[in-house]
Formats: sequence, structure tokens, C-alpha cells
Amino acid sequence: MSKELDAIMQPKSIAIIGASTKEGAVGNEILSNLIKYGFTGDLYPVNPKAEEICGLKVYKSILDISGSIDMAVIIIPKDFVPAAIDECAQKGVKGLVIISAGYKETGAEGLKAEQALAEQVKKYGMRLVGPNCLGVINTASEVRLDASFAMALPRAGRTAFISQSGALGAAILNLLEDLKVGLSQFVSIGNAADCTTETFLDYWKDEPNTDQILLYMETISDPAEFSRLSKEVSKKKPIIAIKAGRSAAGASAASSHTGSLAGADLAADALLKQSGVIRANSVLEMFEVAQAFENCPIPKDKRVAVITNSGGPGIMATDAICELGLEMATISDKTKEYLRSFLPAAASVKNPIDMIATAPLEHYPKTLEAVIADENVDAIMMISVPFANVDPMEIAKTVMDVKAKHPEKPILCVMMTPSNFFNELSKIKTNIPFYQYPESAANSIAKLYQQRVWMERQEGKTPNFSVNKNKAKDIIASALKEGRGQLTTLESIDVLDAYGIRTCKYAFASNVNEAANEANKIGYPVVMKITSTKISHKTEVGGVIVGITSEENLREEYDALIQRLEARNIAQDLDGVIIQEMVKGNREMVCGVATDPQYGHLMMFGLGGIFVETLKDVAFRVNPLTDIDVKEMVQSVKAYKILKGARGEGSANIDQIEETLLRLSQLVTDFSFIKELDINPLKISDKTAEGVAVDGRIEVNMEEAKKALGLGCCCSGNCCS
Amino acid sequence: MSKELDAIMQPKSIAIIGASTKEGAVGNEILSNLIKYGFTGDLYPVNPKAEEICGLKVYKSILDISGSIDMAVIIIPKDFVPAAIDECAQKGVKGLVIISAGYKETGAEGLKAEQALAEQVKKYGMRLVGPNCLGVINTASEVRLDASFAMALPRAGRTAFISQSGALGAAILNLLEDLKVGLSQFVSIGNAADCTTETFLDYWKDEPNTDQILLYMETISDPAEFSRLSKEVSKKKPIIAIKAGRSAAGASAASSHTGSLAGADLAADALLKQSGVIRANSVLEMFEVAQAFENCPIPKDKRVAVITNSGGPGIMATDAICELGLEMATISDKTKEYLRSFLPAAASVKNPIDMIATAPLEHYPKTLEAVIADENVDAIMMISVPFANVDPMEIAKTVMDVKAKHPEKPILCVMMTPSNFFNELSKIKTNIPFYQYPESAANSIAKLYQQRVWMERQEGKTPNFSVNKNKAKDIIASALKEGRGQLTTLESIDVLDAYGIRTCKYAFASNVNEAANEANKIGYPVVMKITSTKISHKTEVGGVIVGITSEENLREEYDALIQRLEARNIAQDLDGVIIQEMVKGNREMVCGVATDPQYGHLMMFGLGGIFVETLKDVAFRVNPLTDIDVKEMVQSVKAYKILKGARGEGSANIDQIEETLLRLSQLVTDFSFIKELDINPLKISDKTAEGVAVDGRIEVNMEEAKKALGLGCCCSGNCCS
Repeated sequence: MSKELDAIMQPKSIAIIGASTKEGAVGNEILSNLIKYGFTGDLYPVNPKAEEICGLKVYKSILDISGSIDMAVIIIPKDFVPAAIDECAQKGVKGLVIISAGYKETGAEGLKAEQALAEQVKKYGMRLVGPNCLGVINTASEVRLDASFAMALPRAGRTAFISQSGALGAAILNLLEDLKVGLSQFVSIGNAADCTTETFLDYWKDEPNTDQILLYMETISDPAEFSRLSKEVSKKKPIIAIKAGRSAAGASAASSHTGSLAGADLAADALLKQSGVIRANSVLEMFEVAQAFENCPIPKDKRVAVITNSGGPGIMATDAICELGLEMATISDKTKEYLRSFLPAAASVKNPIDMIATAPLEHYPKTLEAVIADENVDAIMMISVPFANVDPMEIAKTVMDVKAKHPEKPILCVMMTPSNFFNELSKIKTNIPFYQYPESAANSIAKLYQQRVWMERQEGKTPNFSVNKNKAKDIIASALKEGRGQLTTLESIDVLDAYGIRTCKYAFASNVNEAANEANKIGYPVVMKITSTKISHKTEVGGVIVGITSEENLREEYDALIQRLEARNIAQDLDGVIIQEMVKGNREMVCGVATDPQYGHLMMFGLGGIFVETLKDVAFRVNPLTDIDVKEMVQSVKAYKILKGARGEGSANIDQIEETLLRLSQLVTDFSFIKELDINPLKISDKTAEGVAVDGRIEVNMEEAKKALGLGCCCSGNCCS
Repeated sequence: MSKELDAIMQPKSIAIIGASTKEGAVGNEILSNLIKYGFTGDLYPVNPKAEEICGLKVYKSILDISGSIDMAVIIIPKDFVPAAIDECAQKGVKGLVIISAGYKETGAEGLKAEQALAEQVKKYGMRLVGPNCLGVINTASEVRLDASFAMALPRAGRTAFISQSGALGAAILNLLEDLKVGLSQFVSIGNAADCTTETFLDYWKDEPNTDQILLYMETISDPAEFSRLSKEVSKKKPIIAIKAGRSAAGASAASSHTGSLAGADLAADALLKQSGVIRANSVLEMFEVAQAFENCPIPKDKRVAVITNSGGPGIMATDAICELGLEMATISDKTKEYLRSFLPAAASVKNPIDMIATAPLEHYPKTLEAVIADENVDAIMMISVPFANVDPMEIAKTVMDVKAKHPEKPILCVMMTPSNFFNELSKIKTNIPFYQYPESAANSIAKLYQQRVWMERQEGKTPNFSVNKNKAKDIIASALKEGRGQLTTLESIDVLDAYGIRTCKYAFASNVNEAANEANKIGYPVVMKITSTKISHKTEVGGVIVGITSEENLREEYDALIQRLEARNIAQDLDGVIIQEMVKGNREMVCGVATDPQYGHLMMFGLGGIFVETLKDVAFRVNPLTDIDVKEMVQSVKAYKILKGARGEGSANIDQIEETLLRLSQLVTDFSFIKELDINPLKISDKTAEGVAVDGRIEVNMEEAKKALGLGCCCSGNCCS
């Protein structure tokens, strides 16, 4: 694939089809940018009606050009594009950047045109960026390609950037000077008819000028491929992404627990987390963090030292560092002693180290070098508030000199100065990131540390348990044959059992005598629960009775239950009751699966019982899960402390709970048509410490399930309508 | 008080005691700032060794000056200050600003000197700002006072600012141009030997040039007075505060539930919330918000419309708006229809309204005016990403023109442009706030709306219930007489009962026969709990047995309990057991009181049972509580939904729960020596819907309690040591 994209990102010759004589027109601006930015290859404007544009000879058709052409930028109206592509193919062009709009962003007809475009390009074996995009940029000195119509010419650096929004991409290119990040390559992906975000993740994996990758995304078109590539790339090159649309009202309206929790952004957030992508929530944050990655090594650990010449900002830095989960380093006695030898009496040699307002210039490098040498320190934030005695630019230069000598630890500098200082700074070459406020530096250190954690994260495995797949399949098939996509509680528990998930002992009874009989076999105390294909949320109708201590007690409770259902006029919906072993324990967790239309199965784990929806102490991951994923899921909920026995109950069997999640993952991987699944509660047994599925609910997508299981329609076509 | 401070903030004549000829010296910079800023009154440098400084005649002593002197700025070494103050008094000086350092910030000796200073000033009836401060500023055109040694001369505006950090104050004064906020007055409060933050809150309450107040605080020296004043002032003038030190490791090491939750910052955060102070977490945020308050009316409600020329930033704005608890306005059909009449087909007339990239200048005012007129819209964010077709400054001016004509709704403008645009902007007069990124604007709208909520918040009342104070007092006194500050469970519950808090029926039994007897009286099922002055955390030793159904059952459980205690070798610590009515219900809340050394009693309410410490779904307020405070507390926890019956249990009696908190507030107000108090759980009875105190724990500060109750020492002096 690399080779193919070289035609677009490192062309030797470009035809600009639709080059325009009119200043301000896109076809003029792109050509003008290409020239201004000093493209190292040959440029061939194509326009049947012009002779010369920007001093270059214009060709009537690409076929009139004598030299060979690697890439064409197409800016002509949509309807003329297919013919132009035919000519490009004839000319041997390998790469296209189509700026022209009017495709899928305009509706169904545009979409059709776009699909035709993609097929045409594929047929010719070309690669395409766009349509409806801003263009592409490669700042490498041997290329100097700016085939975009953004106003600003980009500053060169080692950061590659993809924008799924052309306008935002343009805005960011304009802001790059302010944002103090230099680009290696930039791609406005447009409608992504051919090349996608994933295509460029792959291309940049081994691109020698790119050390980190920034993404502005509004959708992730191929989550599985995105995740696979990101996992690979991000171990070597940090990926920092904005995924916009966090708040979109896309939450499933499903009534299940998992469904109502799994909002639009949960799946995306889980996927980014699992894939090692560092998420930023604003353009400013993305570039602040990018600055840190551009200039800092990845810290060994999370112990931060703050050096300041003013107490207030030191306190604010400490607040931010602690809130972000980092630690304030404990300065070693040796370092403290040395600092005391030259800092004034009023200075503080504890972290934050306060050199006080009158600190002369020479105290900066002396203090900084001592702190770099301290083994207790992994990263350093240097804060300076300007006073009349020292020029802030001198301080900046001094700190950069120290960094040049000691590149081993991240040093981030906060200069609480007016922006004219930063304007000055943008004119010189820097080797550390500079921020105006301590909070920005602290957040950047947190993200550097996140990268360290990711780099050291073990490669996870998705185990393959020996399970009774056929039994599960038969249960589902028999429900489908009855025209049901919603399994009964009993069926659901049987499916879980078939996959080796610990469920409590249970039996079905269709009347009170059978119930008494089964309860006598299981042994008291038991739980009695209604089972019904029609009644959901059993607790709300008083359909779950716990602590039944004897046969007599059971018969009383059964009668009372029937009366309650009759009062609600739903007694006729009762299929029977389940008699269950009563698992003793106060701790109730929940496991669940929801289906996101784009990301597929979304796995949930957290605090269960009546708290699921109110407290939302749950973690999500996109299926399939690895052993490392489930470990992280279980440990990330607050209720983990409860699982570990915070109040003296003894620890739950964490390994077994993790295995439960892995088995669930295998279940929904095997039966991808499972739409929703809840185990609520997964009760922690006081006796065995295991998580026991006390209740279960599984719903399948009937149409997909029938297709997958090879079942025809069983209900005269009604169920599939 | 106002009159007194006028001598400092609006002096007609100032003596600069310690004026210096040496450039860069503080005594030179202050005089030079006073002159450069155009002080409208008379300036008298005082220095025994100089003839002329900055062109002004220098006096050997303040007594040599012939005119009268309102205020003296003192910059001489600490040891010479007392004599200088004596002379100031002799001269009739009313106000002092003491820049000199070396006071309490240096230790015990300095503190003594500072206390002497305060007394001396008080004796003379003067007011004092400092010592160890940066100075004071009043930008009013009839005053033009800059008696500070900050580098930058402040821009005039309608915002007053107090800094408890001199260095940070200086940094912020330097940054004011960037921060786009103008000051009315500035005070560096220094060590606050006399004038405090509270003094100036009071002074600015009716100060005609001040519309809003900014605070940078590291401590709140008098929380009660701060709260009283803030409540009053903030209804008219928004107060925006940074309270640094959020992360300080000041959490009480107490083992109680409430103690371990009440971290250093909880009290401060609760106090700010109760007092109507808008909290900012960084300098940047404080000034971004201040800009909004300076330029915007307070919105009627929280429905925000976003107008943009680029989809990406529109989505990011929507994300931020929703995450901050604001709402995206539903644009009315009438407005939509009108917008459709002139916006291009590709534009979106739904919120966010996307005028698309090519929007000409005239679309900005047309769209904006239509949205202002829409009754569904309370606040507007206008976002522009610059393209070659329109000059961003023209857009800014157009938006400001619309604002001038329609001042009724907040309009916040986001210009995603490089900072040179903002540099240009700082040179002209603006009437709306401008931000570089949508997240800043969204946060500012959220804070404007917070002010609306505060302004409309009812004045709360602290009711006075009829309680049995004497009974509570007697119970505490009898524990104290036994040398205990920790009340037993039974005593604790009796105290709560005396204050009209619903506790469950209970009785004490010292042996199994008594226990059976009491249980028979209360009626089964009952709960049996150990009571002991020595054993804390009863569940951990298996000391709480629920669901005892009969006398036989009770006798079995009692025997088992004794065996468990014997196994731990603590059977001898058992005083007896409490037999309690078993309150049926699944919902367990917690009420608690902790004592913060500075803020006093900190009241807690939230989700109880085993979840308190892990889930931390709790709300805090500083005592005393009003009826509005408790309403907000109860509604602010996530578990409120559970209280309201999220899963079909029926709503708890919310009024009664609120009353419980108010009665607790009265209890700890009456007995201020109560150190810690926990009701965990406050169980919601399924039968009555009331919150019932099922367990209680009260600990008093013995020394304070004895003093307050007039008890002598009862244990040969050991208990008070």
C-alpha cells in the first residue's frame, strides 16, 4: 500500500485539472500554494480556456502534457470528473486528490456518483483522496507539497495530521504558528471514497519523517481495522485524537440496562482506550499535548517535580498534577541539601520547589540540573512568573540549554507572560514545550505518562474456552422457532451455562406443586422468580421473591404472587416460575452486552443491582475482549474496592469474574446476532467468592439469527417483517 | 468601614516612605508607577538620604511635609516600620500599604512583629493593607492610583480583583492585555494583618465602578464572614474565585466514614457553592469567565444556539455545551423558515446552525438577528473559521454592531483565528467576549447560567425545631463523666432521638435473657447489634445480625456471636447488645458530620451502606444548613433517583429526609463540640417511606465538651491531657 500512496504524498509531477486564472478561486489557490510552497517536482495546470496561470504554461488536456504525471488534483465540477479520470488513467496517473464537491454530502444522488467514482478509480488501480476535501500536504524538504487551498503555508515538523473536516483542517493549518507544532504530512480526508483514516494510519506507520499522528475524527468508519492499526502504530508513534460528537443523542432507546447506558460516545471512547489512542477533547488540548510529544521523551514513571519562582502557580500546578492522577515527586535529601546551598532562606526546597520571585537567572539552570539528576523525579515542570530582574526570553533560553545537555527527562516550561513573549518564541527553534499556564503543562505530562502505560501494557490474548456451542445454538433456535427473539430467563441462563458461566442452580415449574417439588430438591432457602415471554423488569411487578425458607412459605408466596399479577391483569402472561438456589452475598455486579450499529458488541461490567442506572459505575469495552481488557475493566470501576472486600467480606474471586467476561465475549463472538445480554446481578457468593449469574436476559436480532442459523421463516412471515 | 478604606483606595495625597533613587528597587518602582499612571493627588517621597526622585522633591521625614497626607506606602526594612507608623499617626495618616516583608511568612518571630504591627495600627485607628504585599490599584479616572510594583500598568474596567499571592497578582497584571479584562480596583492582600479578603468584599459591595469581583485565594481566613458577605454581594455582583490548594493532603485521618471522605477541599468547595461564588480552576478560566460577565447580560435560561460557518467546531461546541449541563436550543420553525430563505441549500438551519464555509459577511448579522429574536434561545455562541472570502475583523465588527442594537441576550464569539487577530482586537473597544475555541465560550455560558440560578435561588431559612436539648446534654455529660468522648451506639441513637430524628425502636440488653425479653416486646423480625465502647466498625467483626425471626433464632445467634468475639479475643469488650426493630427496605442512605479545623462542621448526605467510601456518592455543605441547602444536597446526589423510586419502589419521604438533615444541623450547632457523627444507614422504610436512623455514632471533643457543659475533670486529669 505504501508504494501506491507515494504517488499522492510524494509525487514527482502533478497535473492541476481545473487550475483557474481567477484569484480567490480554489483552482487558483491550490496552484498558487503549490508554487509558493516550492514544490520540488513539475506542475502542469490544465484548463481548456487559459494560456498561462501563475506564470506556468496551461494545457488544454492532461493528454497534451509530454512528461509523465504521478498525481492529479481535480477541481472541476462534479459532472466532468469521470471523463477527467479516464484521461488521467490514459496518461498513467497513479494518485488523485479530488477537491470537487457535490457527492454523498448532498444526499442519495451524490452518494451514487461517489460510489461510481470509487469504482472507476479502483478499476484503474489508482488511489484517491477525497472527494470534497481541502487537499494534502507533505512538508519534507525533498517534496514540499502543499496541494491544499488553506490560507496559511504549513510549518515543517514531525507530526502528521488527518482531518475529517475540511473547514476545521483549514482553521488548524491557520493556527499552526500559535499551536507551535510542525507538520510532516497533512491529509484532508473529505468523503473518504477510497483512502480513509485507516489508510493513512497504515501509510504513516513507517513514514520516516513522522513521529506522532494527530486525528480529527467525526466518525470511525471501520472500527475493527482502526483498532488493529492503532494498536500497532501507537506503540511506536503516539496517536492523539479528537473524536467529536461525544454528546450526540445516539443512545439506544432499548429498555435494557446495558442499552440505556451505552450512549453514543461510550463505544468510541472504549475503542480509543483499547487501541492506545490518546484522546483530546479540544483542538487546543490536542496541540498542547502534541507539543509535549514533539519535544519530550516518554517519562519512566509519574513522579513530577515543579520548580517555580512564585508560590501561587506552584500550588495551582500541584492541584492539577494531583487531580490528573500524577504524583508530586519526593525530592531526595541530597538534592534538597544542594538546593539549600545556594537558594535563599525564604526559598522552599520541597516540591513544589520555590526559588522565590527574586531568583536570578543562574538559579534556573542550577536548580533544574539538580532536579533532573534526582532519581525520584520522572518529569519536570518549570514555572516562571516574570519580574523586572530577569528577561523571560533569557530564562527560556537557559532552560533550553539545560535540556540540550540533559535530554533524558521531560521538561515542560510554563511562562506566565503576555503573548508577545510567545510570538517571539515562535520565531526561534525550541526543544521544550512552552505553555502560558501550569494546567496545560500538567495535562500534557499526564498524556505523556498515559503513553508510557500504553507502551508497557502487555499484549492481551483472547482465550478460546471449551464450551457447549451446540447447546446454546439449540436453545436460541428453539426460541426463534416460537417466533421469539427475546429468550426467557430460563433459556438465557441455560445459554450462559452452556458457555461455562457460573449460574446458580435452578429449575422451571409451571405450577405451585412443581415449584414446591423443585425447591425441595434444590434445598432451602430458595428464590422464586416469574418467567414470562411478555413481562420484562420482573422486580417492578413484585415478580422476584427471595428468602423462601420452607415449602409452606413457598406456597404462601406463590399465592400472593398470582394475586399481584391478577391485580395488574397480567396473570395470563405468566409462563411459570423459576426456583433458584439462593446465593448469599451482599455484593451484586452486572455484566452486559449492547449492540452499537457501528462498533458492534459493547461489553459492560460494573456495580449491579438497583444501582446500575443511577450510579453508572460501569466500564465499557468493544468486543472482542482480551485478558488484559477484562483486567482493566474490572479494576477501573469504583466498586472494585468492594469486590476486593473493602468492608471486611473477603475478596471476590477476581480471576473467575474476569473469566466470566471473557466467556461472554466468546458467546457474543460466536453468536454475533445477539443484540442484548444482561447478567444482573452477577452476585458474589459469600461462600465461594465466585460471581454467580443469578439472573440473565438475552435478546437476539431475529432476522440475523435466522440467517446465521439457517432457519427459514416459521411464522408465516410475520416475525421477519 | 467604607469611609476608612477610602483613605487607601481613593487618597488625595500619598507619602512613599522608602522611596528609592535606585532604578529597579521596589521603592523606586512604586513611585515611578504612581507617576506614570497619572495619580491625580499629591505624591511625597520620603527618604532621609535623597534630594529628588523621579523629579519630585524628597522629604527627610513624613513630618517635614506641609500638606496633609491620607495614605502612606511603606517600603523600608521591617525594623524601622514601627517608628514610621508612629510618625504617620502624628501626621494624621489614615491608611497604610506596607510592602515590607519579613513578617509571619518567615516564622514565629515575624508573626510576633506582625501582631505588634496590627495592634499599633489599630491603636491609631488606621487601616492597613499588607504587610508583604504588592500594593493597591484604583483605575478610576478621578484617582488613577497604581501603588504597586507590578511591571504593567493596568487597563481600566469594571472588575475588582484581590490576590492572596503577590507574585501571582503581578503575573496577572502583566497578562491583563491578553486576558481582555479591565480592572476597577486591585488589592494584593499580603499577610492580611488588618484588611482581609472579607474587608474588600464589603468595601466593593456598593463601589460604583465595580460590577464583578475576582478572587485568588489560598485560604479563607474567616469562613463564616466570607460566606455571609459573599451571599449578599454575589446576588448583585458576580464573584469568581480561584481557591488554590484543592489537592493539599489535609484530609482528616479519622477512621469514621465522614472523616475519611471530607478531604481538604470539600469544605472550601461546599462553602463557595453555598455562598454563590463561581469557582474557577485556573487563571485562564477565571478571566475567560470574567470576560463573559463583563460583556454579557445574565441569560434567562440555559438554551444555547450555536451559529457557525464550519461543521467541526459546531459539533465540538455542541459536545461542550451538553457536557456542561446546558441545553442546545430548539430553533423555532419560524426562524428556520426565515434562515432557509437566504442561506444556501447546503447550510443547516437546525442547531448548530451551519452557514457553511462560503458564508458572506451579510449572512452573519442576518442569521444572528434571527436567532436573537427566537424565543427558544437564551444565549448564542457565534463561531467563525476564517476563509479567504471574509476578513475576520469585519466579522467581529459586524457581530459587535448587532450586539449594540440587541443587548438583551448573551452573545459570545469564537474566532478560530491566529493570535494576531486577538492582538488587533485588544486595541479596539469590544462589547462581546471573544474566544479562540468553542470550549471556552461554552464554559463561560455555563458560568453565566450558574449566576442566573444563584440569583433566583430562594433565601434559605434555618428552622428551629422543638427538641429535647437537655436530654441530649445529659447523655453526653454522662459519657464524659465516664471518661468517654465516643458515645455508644445506644447513647448516639438516644441523642438523635432527643432531636426528633426518626430512629428505629431499640432496647439495650446485657445478656441473652434480657435480649430475648426485649425482642419479644419489640416484635420480630429484629436486628441484634453489639454495643461496646471499644469495638468500632461492628460489621467487620460480625457484630450485626439481621433478620432474627424468633426467640429461638435469637438465642442461637447470640451464642454464635459470643463465639466469634471469643475467637478474636474481644468478648470481654462487649457491653451488651442492642435489639432493634428491623426496618425493611433496600435503600440505605448516610448522614454524617465531620469537623474541619478551619471551616467547622461539614455536613454530609448521600448513598449509605457499604458504598459510602467506594462510590462517594455524597454531597457536602458547611454548617449551618438552610432548608434550601438540604434540598440541594439531597437532589445533588446520584442516588436521588433511587430515593425517588427509580426501580418501582415508590418515592422516599424526601421532606422528612431533608428535615433529618436540618435537625442534625441544629444538633451540631447546639453542641459545637461534636467532632464526628454518622447515621449509617439512614434506611428508607418500605412501609412508611421515612428515613430511619438504624445505626448512629457520635464522638465529641472531650476538652471542648467539658468546657461547654461546665464539667470538671473526672479522671484525675488523664482525659484532658
